[in-house]
This record gives sequence, structure tokens and C-alpha cells, in this order.
Amino acid sequence: MRDLSGVGSTPLSGVGTVRWYRPEADLVLPDRSDPSAVDPEAERSRFAAARDAARAAIRDARDRAAERVGEEEAAVFDAHEQFLDDPALVEDVEAAIEVGTPAERAVDDRFEEAIAQFEAMDGRMAERADDLRDVRDRLLRVLLDVRSVDLGNLPDGTVLLAERLTPSNTAELDPDAVAGIATVTGGRTAHAAIIARSLSIPAVVGVGELLREVEDGAEVLVDGEGGRLVVDPDAARLAAIDGEGASVVTERVSTAGGRAIEVAANVGGEAELGPAAERGADGIGLFRTEFLFYDRESPPGEDEQYETITAALAAFPEDRVIVRTVDIGGDKPVPYLDLPAETNPFLGSRGIRLSLGDHAGLFETQLRALLRAAGHAEAREDGGELAVMFPMISRIEEAEAALEVVESVAADLEDQGVDHAVPELGAMVETPAAAFTADALADRLDFLSIGTNDLTQYVMAADRENDAVADYHDPLHPAVLRAIDRTTSAASGTDAWVGMCGEMAGDPALTELLIGLGLDELSMSAVTVPAVKQRVREIETEAASDLAAEALACETRAEVRDLLGA
Amino acid sequence: MRDLSGVGSTPLSGVGTVRWYRPEADLVLPDRSDPSAVDPEAERSRFAAARDAARAAIRDARDRAAERVGEEEAAVFDAHEQFLDDPALVEDVEAAIEVGTPAERAVDDRFEEAIAQFEAMDGRMAERADDLRDVRDRLLRVLLDVRSVDLGNLPDGTVLLAERLTPSNTAELDPDAVAGIATVTGGRTAHAAIIARSLSIPAVVGVGELLREVEDGAEVLVDGEGGRLVVDPDAARLAAIDGEGASVVTERVSTAGGRAIEVAANVGGEAELGPAAERGADGIGLFRTEFLFYDRESPPGEDEQYETITAALAAFPEDRVIVRTVDIGGDKPVPYLDLPAETNPFLGSRGIRLSLGDHAGLFETQLRALLRAAGHAEAREDGGELAVMFPMISRIEEAEAALEVVESVAADLEDQGVDHAVPELGAMVETPAAAFTADALADRLDFLSIGTNDLTQYVMAADRENDAVADYHDPLHPAVLRAIDRTTSAASGTDAWVGMCGEMAGDPALTELLIGLGLDELSMSAVTVPAVKQRVREIETEAASDLAAEALACETRAEVRDLLGA
Repeated sequence: MRDLSGVGSTPLSGVGTVRWYRPEADLVLPDRSDPSAVDPEAERSRFAAARDAARAAIRDARDRAAERVGEEEAAVFDAHEQFLDDPALVEDVEAAIEVGTPAERAVDDRFEEAIAQFEAMDGRMAERADDLRDVRDRLLRVLLDVRSVDLGNLPDGTVLLAERLTPSNTAELDPDAVAGIATVTGGRTAHAAIIARSLSIPAVVGVGELLREVEDGAEVLVDGEGGRLVVDPDAARLAAIDGEGASVVTERVSTAGGRAIEVAANVGGEAELGPAAERGADGIGLFRTEFLFYDRESPPGEDEQYETITAALAAFPEDRVIVRTVDIGGDKPVPYLDLPAETNPFLGSRGIRLSLGDHAGLFETQLRALLRAAGHAEAREDGGELAVMFPMISRIEEAEAALEVVESVAADLEDQGVDHAVPELGAMVETPAAAFTADALADRLDFLSIGTNDLTQYVMAADRENDAVADYHDPLHPAVLRAIDRTTSAASGTDAWVGMCGEMAGDPALTELLIGLGLDELSMSAVTVPAVKQRVREIETEAASDLAAEALACETRAEVRDLLGA
Repeated sequence: MRDLSGVGSTPLSGVGTVRWYRPEADLVLPDRSDPSAVDPEAERSRFAAARDAARAAIRDARDRAAERVGEEEAAVFDAHEQFLDDPALVEDVEAAIEVGTPAERAVDDRFEEAIAQFEAMDGRMAERADDLRDVRDRLLRVLLDVRSVDLGNLPDGTVLLAERLTPSNTAELDPDAVAGIATVTGGRTAHAAIIARSLSIPAVVGVGELLREVEDGAEVLVDGEGGRLVVDPDAARLAAIDGEGASVVTERVSTAGGRAIEVAANVGGEAELGPAAERGADGIGLFRTEFLFYDRESPPGEDEQYETITAALAAFPEDRVIVRTVDIGGDKPVPYLDLPAETNPFLGSRGIRLSLGDHAGLFETQLRALLRAAGHAEAREDGGELAVMFPMISRIEEAEAALEVVESVAADLEDQGVDHAVPELGAMVETPAAAFTADALADRLDFLSIGTNDLTQYVMAADRENDAVADYHDPLHPAVLRAIDRTTSAASGTDAWVGMCGEMAGDPALTELLIGLGLDELSMSAVTVPAVKQRVREIETEAASDLAAEALACETRAEVRDLLGA
């Protein structure tokens, strides 16, 4: 038995057989051959056939991802298909074939050039190099007749090990077949980790170099709660996980001292509503609406959005569903929105800034759909209700302007005799500016919801998708805790309640601290709802306050960790 | 008389004759001609001659910029020369000439393609398109024999009007000839505006579309204090500016209530030291060291840095010189540092993060030079002293680690018998995290210096170089004022003093507010030192505190502006 430690990413455990995912290792090209021995016509046909096969595989992967995870994650495969059909690339490969290069060599050479070109660019363009590699490898696998690991059809009980997984890799996985994931690199808040969590696949990330020593076929236990990978686990260790796994708590929960805490789920698409309800979530604390906007030619209409929101309300007939208005920025490609390329997209035009600016029309359409859905919820009288929150608020003027748009949309609906209601309205607190002015926001709104992923990014001035500064992206840095405290303290003198919908909210080891910091609601990946609900019941409210005070007095993350025993 | 309003950028006034800078307007290409009528050999010679002439002009501009502004700003011209010599571009143009295209048409076509390619890229690469345009226009001007506005040789008394000026345009200007600048777009904290300020050129930026109606040859008054451009000013208006312009105050100043306020200068290169002393600065509050690292093949050695710092100390023999350790990140090209391209460079590896990480060797060399210079200052016993501050601090651990490196460098120097001293040590407060943990920083360091440009950027989550979010980049947003207050309040219980070295510090309209917020030192572009010193003397300390309290209670920037009458 060997025990490797990493970062628990999905707090579930699984046991299975190791299969390494090494997408490039098996693709060995034949030696360069005599051009006169090559039949260009035959090679052209092989290339065309390889493209057809790759296209079919990409579409297949796309459909699986759309079904299992959502349209947003599926969109990456459209980019792959675009590369497959890129005229310049195809012509380059065919030209090389024409002068006597075998198809696999022509693909490898020409794609390598294109990859180098993208890598020489900055930021997002450089990331496209990975997409090109994916496409090249697909083509080479067909041409070389190499059967790689098909991520969508792994045998039951597979524990997948990899250097790292991309969001597209992860979105392909079948959660029924994959018993767990462990990776050499990566962090808990990486997009791939979030997807694994939403698929309820046990995962430990950032295990480090030692992971490479674990061999294909080994039996391993992935302990996503403890952040450990156990190779050849003994009987005791295996028995221990049988008894674990928090059981679902369907009723609402309070602390031991009787303080009610709402434990809700974050949801990124309709497919996640059912699992969230099954896990006992007290409603939806963050319903992302971006999936409605990705991977299409034009924005979704009012009726389509209305249908989606009422479906979410139907899944939680007695609970609150908090919908976040569209939060798109220059870092995600939405062709019909024509967003400008920005040097620092995370510090650019995004969220409410676009909704009150260049995309005011889109915002109004979304609000019409939301106010109609709120009217629908009210009419049902079954207890379910809608709430709406605005992302990326950094100025009081923005909250005021958003409220004005809501009023004007309500007036229009009234004039038109359309059933509607004005839902509870709130702001995301994810910029330091929102934390510093939380008092003024709380005066104007019904609630605040702290988005700790972005708040951490901005407080620490560290891109949460940049591995080089991954160490800064931890909400346990005292500065982040103080920003949270500033928010809850400022709101405590008002009627507004304060929730949290960042990844931090779903870590049961932090529940006591968060309750001590004064949060009324915690919203998280559905998979962590049962554990957090059980944890809430054990907490003494006064001890939680003391813990929070001690944490706020800490000066380093290490001190906070020591305090929490984390 | 017509009066246009904009943003006062350099608080000086000037009167002169309008000359519009429209770099592309005069470059009209001849119609496409019959290829057989073109003599490729003659066109090749014309192209070669144009490249020679453009190269000479670029080098000339580079030298002028280096002398007038500094090496950092001059480096942009090296990029221009690289484009001029880019083998692929040159070959493309020559190939077009070979098939019968006239040289100017070949240059225009091929550069246009390259520009389009760069524009299709993201972020920084897209900005290179502007450099390519500069180079193309230089070549076309020679080929078409068009005399454009030579920014480095404008007639005396020119007021330059432009859509916008780039940093390289501005660095070319001769401050003795240019009576003022006014631009359609741009903001006070843009790099070009900062350069204009360091050149003491009166400037009003962001005047808007109305500026286009001002014609070449008009007489205008640029009122950089009031943020106005007056066309055909009357005698009264002209007389008014003769009496203005704060006179230099060489002695140190205190408020009317007797509170001493240090008014220092920000300096970005040795050439700015003399003007700073002449303007009566109480020392240097921010000595940037980046200019030592740009535009060279390898980093500066210990002795070179020591010489530069002792020269700065010599310029202020009785004052303090605060040197900021090198603050480089992925947004500026420093070839020998091999910095990775980042999607959000302002949220990436920069400043102290690199000094404690990949570039620890560079940091140690710089600290050795600084500790030797501190020893030199101490030995002189003339009152001058050195202080050192660390940029981009966001974790207490970083301050502690930096202090450890200082200790270890001091121990090495001691062992080696090299004269040295440990200077005052401080941290820049430019991340929200530093503001939230200012108490812990103040406990460990001698001083804090608030960098409002970056602090505003991070608090508001708005890239200060992105025009689309320019409105967010204003330190008068209440959230920024509260972040400043959090810093000064946290430090007030400690022995540490707190200064400010962002652009905000140099605005006399904000001096009372800043003193009320508890700042002990203000450091600014030298040109604003006299006005701020005079303003300090007028301020009643108690009224300043009241004003700050009122400003902190404001909820919007508009309220703050009303309060300040700004």
C-alpha cells in the first residue's frame, strides 16, 4: 500500500483500475521515405478518410459532452472541427502529399508548423495550440491505426491518471464508468476540476511527480475527500470508504444553535437540475445562464429563456432558484456578440458591464424572460420563487442602473398586459469594489452573493487560470477572508441576506468558518450538498463566531490552515 | 472664443498654433499600374533606399526619445527597426516588386496583410499592429515623397492636436517647441499622458469629437489645470494664465495646522532627476528601476545599478530617495528574462512574484547594489538617505521572504567586507490584498506606499490600459477611497508611515482629501510638485479629516466629485 497526497477536488471516493491517459505517447511516425515511392493519389484518399473519421469522432464527443455536461463545455469540439476544415491547413497538407510526402508525415509536419505559430502568440491564441494538437492526434491515430484511450468509452471501474485533463477531456468522461481521476498537475478551481465535480467523479488533482510511478493496471483508491490516492489499498482502507459518503438530507438544516442555513446548488445547465434535487439541495443558489448563449448563431430568444427558467423552477417547486444574468466576457468566444479582444480580459468588459453597455438589448430580453418566469412562480403558489442576481458589480451606479432596467421592463410588461412579477434582486460580490461598498449595495438590494473564485482572483490580483500564480488562488488567504467579512459585516445592519456561491462554499472543512463569518446561504456543486448539510447540523453558532474572529486575526494562509486543521 | 472641456493631464498652461497630427491622411497611393510598365530593378532600389531612410529616421527618433524621456520609452523604436528588417516581410515585398508591382504598392499590400494578421491576434500582439503601421507609414512617406509632421522638429509654439498619441509619439516631442497637446481620446493615467507630464508639456486629453472641429492654424490655449482647450482665447483669458503656474517652493511644507507633509517626485530615469530637484521635490518618492532593464541584451550588473542609485542620491543630498525594486511582468518584452505569455498579464507573474521566484538572482543583485548605495548614503552624513520598497506585494509571506533576502544579502556583504547598510524598507500597496492586510505589513516594515494606479485597477477589476473600461479607472470611486482608508487606518496604530505614489497624489484638487485620509507623503510627477506644495500650506488639518470622513461616506463617484467640487 502506497499513499500519495494531492488536492481533493471532488469529495467522493472510488476504487478502480489505473489506466493512464497519454494522448501522444503511441503516435510514432514511420521514417521518412523516398518521395518517388509514395502514391500521392492513395495518400490523398487516406488523408480524406482520416478527416472523415476524425470528424465523426469529434461530433460524437461533442454530443456526449453536451448531454453529460452542457453546451458550454461541448463548444470546444466545434473549434476542433473548424481546425479540421481549415482551408489553409488542408491545402498545406495536400500540397505536401502532392510532392511525395506520406499522409501521416504531411499532417505531422504541417500541423507542427501551425502549432508553433499559435504558440508564438499570446494568451488565448497560444491555448489554441492545444486544440490543434488534439486534432492532429486524432488524424494521426486514424492514419497510424493506433487505438488510443477513448475517454467516452472507458471500461467500468477505470481510474484515469493523466498529466492533466483539459475541460474537453473531462466533459467526455462517462461518470458511470470512471471510478475516479488523479492528475499530476492542476488545482481545485480549474475548469476541468469543476466539471469533474458536476459529474460527481471522485477526483484528486495536483498529486505531483510521484503519480507517474503508478502503473497501468494497478488497483487504486481515489479519496477525493482526504485528497489522497492509495495504491493497492488494504482491506481496512477499502472497508472505510464503504461506510463513508454523506447520506442525503432532504429537509432544511440549522446549526446546533438553531440558526437556519440554506444549502443550495450551483447549476450550469438543465442537465444538472435533477442531480441537484436528488442530492437534497435547498434550491439553486447560482443558476448560470451562459450555456444558453454558447455554441449557436444568434442569442436565445425571450421565450426560450422563459422555458429554461420555468424548467428550473419546476425542478425546485418549494425552493428558491437564483438566476445570474448573463456573465460573458472577452475570454470566451461568442461569435454573434462580437466581443473585442482584450489584453486582460478578466479586467475588461464583462458581466453587467456589457449588459449595461454594448449588449443592453440582450439584457432586456433576458430580464423580460426572468420577470415573466417570476410571475409564473408567484402564480403557482407552491412556495417556489425566483431571484435574480447581477454579476461583476463594481459600482453602486451599476446596481442602480440595473434596477432601473428591471423597472422599465416591468412597466413594459405591465403595459402589454403580460403576466410578470419583480423577483428578489441581488448582486454578486466578486470584485473588491463590491466588498468595499457592500453597505450601499445591501441598502439597495435584497441579497448579496459572494463569488469567491473571482473575489479571490481580484483581491490577490492573480488570474485563477494561470498556473504560475496558482498559489495565490486560495480563499484562505487572510485578505480574502477579510474581504468576505467586510461584506457580511456591512450587510448585517440591513435587511439584505448574504450567500456564497464560489467553490469555497462546498468544502465541509470550511463550513464552520463561513457560518462564523455570517453567511446565511451556501451554494455549491450538488455533490457536496449532503456533506455540508450534515456539517451544518454539528456546528455551534458561538464557536463558529469565535473561529471566524480568530481566522480574521491571522496574517498568513498558513496560520489560517493551522487554525482550521486544514 | 470657444471653450472645449476635457481631462487636464499636465497641470500647466500653454498658448500656440494648432497643428493636427494625422499620420495616415496624406499617404495617397497612385492607381494600380500595368505590371509590364514597371522596372523591378528600379523599384527594388527605391525600396532599399526607403528602408535606409526610414531606418535613419527611426534611430534618430530613438535617440531623441532616450535623451528626453528615457530608455524605456525609447525601446519601442527598436521594435520598429525590427519590423523594418523582418526577413519575411522584406522578402514578400521584394517578391511583389519582382512581378511588376511598384514599391509603394508592394509595401502597402504586404504590410496590410501583416497588420491584419496581427490584428486578428489577441492583446499585446494586436497592439503590434500599430507598430507595423508606423513603419509602413514611414516607408510610404519616403516612397511618396510626402513630408509628414515630424514630431521631433515642430516649430516653436505648436499646439499638437491628434486623435490620440502613442507613448512613442509623445516621447518624440520636443518640450521646448510644443506649447501643448490636446487629444480626442485618452485618459489621465495613459502611458502617453504620463510621459507628457514628465516632459512638462501642458496637456488636455479626452476632449471628444468636438476637438475635430478645431482647424490647423487656429490659436488655442491649452489649460491643463482646468482641463480646457480655448480656441481664439480673448485677452483676459490670456492674461489670466500669465499670472498662474505655482512658483517653486524649495523648503519642506506643513499644513496650516502644522502637520508636515513630504512632497516628493516620481522618477523613471536619470534624466528626470534634475527637473525634479529644480521643481523643489522633497526627494524621490518613487524611483522606478525598470529603465535599467529594458532595451539591452542582458540584465544590468551590480556596479551599474550601484552607480545609478548613487547618482540619484547625489541629486537629492539632503532628502530621501525611495527606490522600487524591479517591477516587470509579462506585459513588457524583456527578451533575456524569458517571461511567459499570459492571458491576463496584469493578474500574472510580476513584480515581487518574479523577484522571489524565477528571477531571484536578479533580485539579489539589485539588493546588493541597493545595500551598498545605502551604505554610501550613510557614510556621507549629509542627511540624504535611501529607502527601498517592494512592488506587487499581496501576501505577508512575500514581505517576510523579501526581508529575509535583504538579511541574507547584508550578511554576505558583511562577510565579504563590503561597505553597506540596510535601508528603510517598505511595500507598495497596490493590490486589494495589501490593503486588507496593511496592519500586518505595517508591523513588519518601515513604510507603505500606495500605488493608486494599480490599486484602482485591481479594486475596480478594470485594466487601466483598456479604453472600454476607462470610466472605472478613477480613484475617486468610493471603493478606492475606502481601500486607501483601510491602509492608512491600519498603519496608524504602528510606527510605519504611509505615502502615495500614484497619479492621484499629484492632483492639487485632491491634496486636502489625501491629507485627511492620513497620508504622510505624496509623490508625483515633478511638474505638479510646486502646486501641491502650495496647496498643502493652505490646508486645515481638521477640515481635511472632516472632508475625508464625508468622502468615505459617499456611495458613488458623482457624490465624491460633488463634495470636492471636482
